[in-house]
Amino acid sequence: MTDFHFYTPSEIVFGRSSEEQLPIVLSKYGARKVLVHYGGGSAERSGLLPKIRTLLSGSGIPFCELGGVVPNPRLSLVREGIALCRREGIDFILAVGGGSVIDSSKAIGYGVPYEGDVWDFFDAKAVAVKALPVGVVLTIPASGSEMSDSTVITNDALGLKRGCNNDICRPKFAIMNPERTFTLPAYQTACGVTDILMHTMERYFSKTHMDITDAIAEALLRTVMDAGPKVIADPENYDLRASIMWAGSLSHNGLTGCGGVSDFGTHRLEHELSTLYGVAHGAGLAAIWCFWAEYVKSEDPSRFESFSKNVLGGKEPISAMRDFFHSIGMPASIPELIGRKATEDEIELMSLRCSRGGSFRVGNFKELGKKEMQDIYNLANQ
Amino acid sequence: MTDFHFYTPSEIVFGRSSEEQLPIVLSKYGARKVLVHYGGGSAERSGLLPKIRTLLSGSGIPFCELGGVVPNPRLSLVREGIALCRREGIDFILAVGGGSVIDSSKAIGYGVPYEGDVWDFFDAKAVAVKALPVGVVLTIPASGSEMSDSTVITNDALGLKRGCNNDICRPKFAIMNPERTFTLPAYQTACGVTDILMHTMERYFSKTHMDITDAIAEALLRTVMDAGPKVIADPENYDLRASIMWAGSLSHNGLTGCGGVSDFGTHRLEHELSTLYGVAHGAGLAAIWCFWAEYVKSEDPSRFESFSKNVLGGKEPISAMRDFFHSIGMPASIPELIGRKATEDEIELMSLRCSRGGSFRVGNFKELGKKEMQDIYNLANQ
Repeated sequence: MTDFHFYTPSEIVFGRSSEEQLPIVLSKYGARKVLVHYGGGSAERSGLLPKIRTLLSGSGIPFCELGGVVPNPRLSLVREGIALCRREGIDFILAVGGGSVIDSSKAIGYGVPYEGDVWDFFDAKAVAVKALPVGVVLTIPASGSEMSDSTVITNDALGLKRGCNNDICRPKFAIMNPERTFTLPAYQTACGVTDILMHTMERYFSKTHMDITDAIAEALLRTVMDAGPKVIADPENYDLRASIMWAGSLSHNGLTGCGGVSDFGTHRLEHELSTLYGVAHGAGLAAIWCFWAEYVKSEDPSRFESFSKNVLGGKEPISAMRDFFHSIGMPASIPELIGRKATEDEIELMSLRCSRGGSFRVGNFKELGKKEMQDIYNLANQ
Repeated sequence: MTDFHFYTPSEIVFGRSSEEQLPIVLSKYGARKVLVHYGGGSAERSGLLPKIRTLLSGSGIPFCELGGVVPNPRLSLVREGIALCRREGIDFILAVGGGSVIDSSKAIGYGVPYEGDVWDFFDAKAVAVKALPVGVVLTIPASGSEMSDSTVITNDALGLKRGCNNDICRPKFAIMNPERTFTLPAYQTACGVTDILMHTMERYFSKTHMDITDAIAEALLRTVMDAGPKVIADPENYDLRASIMWAGSLSHNGLTGCGGVSDFGTHRLEHELSTLYGVAHGAGLAAIWCFWAEYVKSEDPSRFESFSKNVLGGKEPISAMRDFFHSIGMPASIPELIGRKATEDEIELMSLRCSRGGSFRVGNFKELGKKEMQDIYNLANQ
C-alpha cells in the first residue's frame, strides 16, 4: 500500500428537509453576500430556486444570481461569474445543481482573489493559494464534486477540457435531499451511476492497495450496481436515490482510494470525447472503459480477478461491465456513443489533445502516451 | 433511513514517514505554543517522543509537556492540564498516544477557554462553544477518537465515567504511522480490534438503515475480523496494522452510521465495568456484547440475520462473536473479564450509575432502563 492523505472537511446535511438548514450553514461558514450559481431552468421549475430565494431573503442574507451553466461547464461563464463577484462584493458562492454547476462555482472561487487569468490553474501555470468558499445544494448525484478537490472546466475558445485538483476548493458544505433527484431522467440517472462507479474504479485499478479500502470500494460498487437499474425502473424510490446520492460523494472524496494510486486514464480519454462531441461525461466513460480494461488488463490480471470475484459475482469483468452499461441504457463503444464511427482525424485530434501535443502521459495502472491513447480510441471505435 | 449529518474535518496523514509532516500540519492549523500530552513511558521508549521534541525544536515551535495519562483518563489530570495551558499560554494541544490521551487532550481543550468547571460538559450542565484545537500522533488504533466528536473522561473523585459529544472537539489532524503499532501487546491489540468492531456494531444495530452504509459497515467488520487474529499472530505485518489503524478511524467518524440511529448501549454498560473494576474498555465490551445481543435480538431479528449473512458467513451471530472474542484472547462474560462473578451489590451499583440514579435510559435498538441494565449484567455474570 501507498502512504496517503485524507481530507474531507465538507459538512454534509443529508435528508428530506435538508434545504431548510441552508441559512444556518451559510451563516456558520461566514457568508455575508452570496452568489447563487445554477444551470438551466430545472432548478427553477422544480421550485428549488424559489425556495432558496425565500430562505435567503427570510434570513436577511443578500445574494445575486448567475444561471446558465451547461454540461461540460465553460470558461466564458466562469469569467463572467468572476467579474460579477468582484463587482458585487460576493464572499460566498452557492452552487445549486450538479457537477457542472459545482465545478463552475469552484472555478469562479479560484478566480475572484487571483490577479492573473483563472485558466492558469487549469493549464498548470499556477497553483491557487486562496479561493472564495463554495457551498452546494446538490440536485444531480454523479460528479462527487460536492466533496471533492476536483474541478473540470472547458475552455470554449480553445476547445480544451482541463481539470484542476486542490484541497482549497473542497466545498464547505453540501445539502443533499434525495427527493430532488426523483425527476432526473433515466439517461441522466444512468450517466450519474456510471460516473459514480468510475470514480471508484479509477481508484480500484491500482497496483498498490489496502484491504480496508478494497473492501469499502467493492461494497460501494456492488451497492451502486444493484441500485442503478432498480432506480431507473422506480425513479421515486427514496432509499435507492439516497444510496446513489451518498455513494456519489463517497466515491470521489478520496475514501475509496486510500492506500492506492489513482489511475484516471479513462476519465482523461473521456474528456476528449465530451469536448469534441458534446456528449455526456458518464456516457463517454461507459463508451471507453471496457476497451481501456482490455488494453491494460495484462498489467495486473489479479486485480481484474478481485473485481470479478468481489463485485461481479465471478463474471468475466469486461463483458459483465458491458452488459451492465447496456442494462442502464449506456453506450459501450464510441459508435454507440455518437451514432457513427469516429474518423481517423478525430482520433488523432483527441489523442493529440489528451497527450497535450504528445508530451503528456496519463494513467498509473498503465501509463498511456499518445500512441496508447490512439490504440484505445481505435479499439473503442469498432 | 434517517436524515443525517456527516462532518469529518480531521486531516489524516497516513504512512511510514507521516511524523515528518508534524511541523507542517501544526503550522497549517496555526499552532504557536503546543502542549505535548501523552501517557506512560512507551512513547518515550519507542523513540517517538524524542523524535517529536526534535521536530518541534527544529521548527522553532515552542512547547511544554504533560505526561501521565492512564487508561480511562482522569478528570484530575485534565484539570492539571487546563491550569498548565493557561499558565503557559498554550494555543494547541498535541495528543501523542491512543484514545485515553486524545480524550484527555480534548477535555483540556474544552476546559481552557471555559470559565466554569470542565466537568459541566460531561455532566450535561453546559455545551461547549469553543475549545483549544487538538492534533494527534496516533499510537493505538481503537477509540477512533482521532476523528470522532467523542470524549470520555472518568471523574476519579466521584467514580463516574461520562462521555461528551461535540463537533468542535474533532481533531484538526491525525498523523498515523502503522509502524508505531508494531509493539502493541497482543492483549491491547485485541482490545483495540474489539473497540473498532463495536463502534461500527453500535451503529449497525439500528432499526433504520441505508444500503450503502450497511455495505460499508459490513465490509469494515469483515476486514477487521479477518485482520485481527492474523495481526496478533504476525504483529509486525504493516498492511494488517494499517488496515486496522484506518478502520479504527472510519469506524467512529460517523461513516458507518449514516442513515441509521446509533445504539451505544453496550458502550454505556461497559463504562461502568471499566470504572468499577479498572478493566480495559475493549475487554469490557467483549464481556457484554453477546448478552446485550441475546437480550435485544427480538427487537429486530432480521438485523441479526443480515449481520450473520453479510459479516459472519452465515454463522449464528452470538456464538460466532463469542468464538471470535475468545480467538483473540478477549473475555466473553463478566467472570472471564474480572476473574470472578460480580456481586449483587456491584450489579446494583453499576445499574444505578449507568441509569444515573434510575432516571436515564440508554440505547436505541432497544431502550434500556435500570431494570434492563440489571438483566443484562446478570446474564453476563453467568
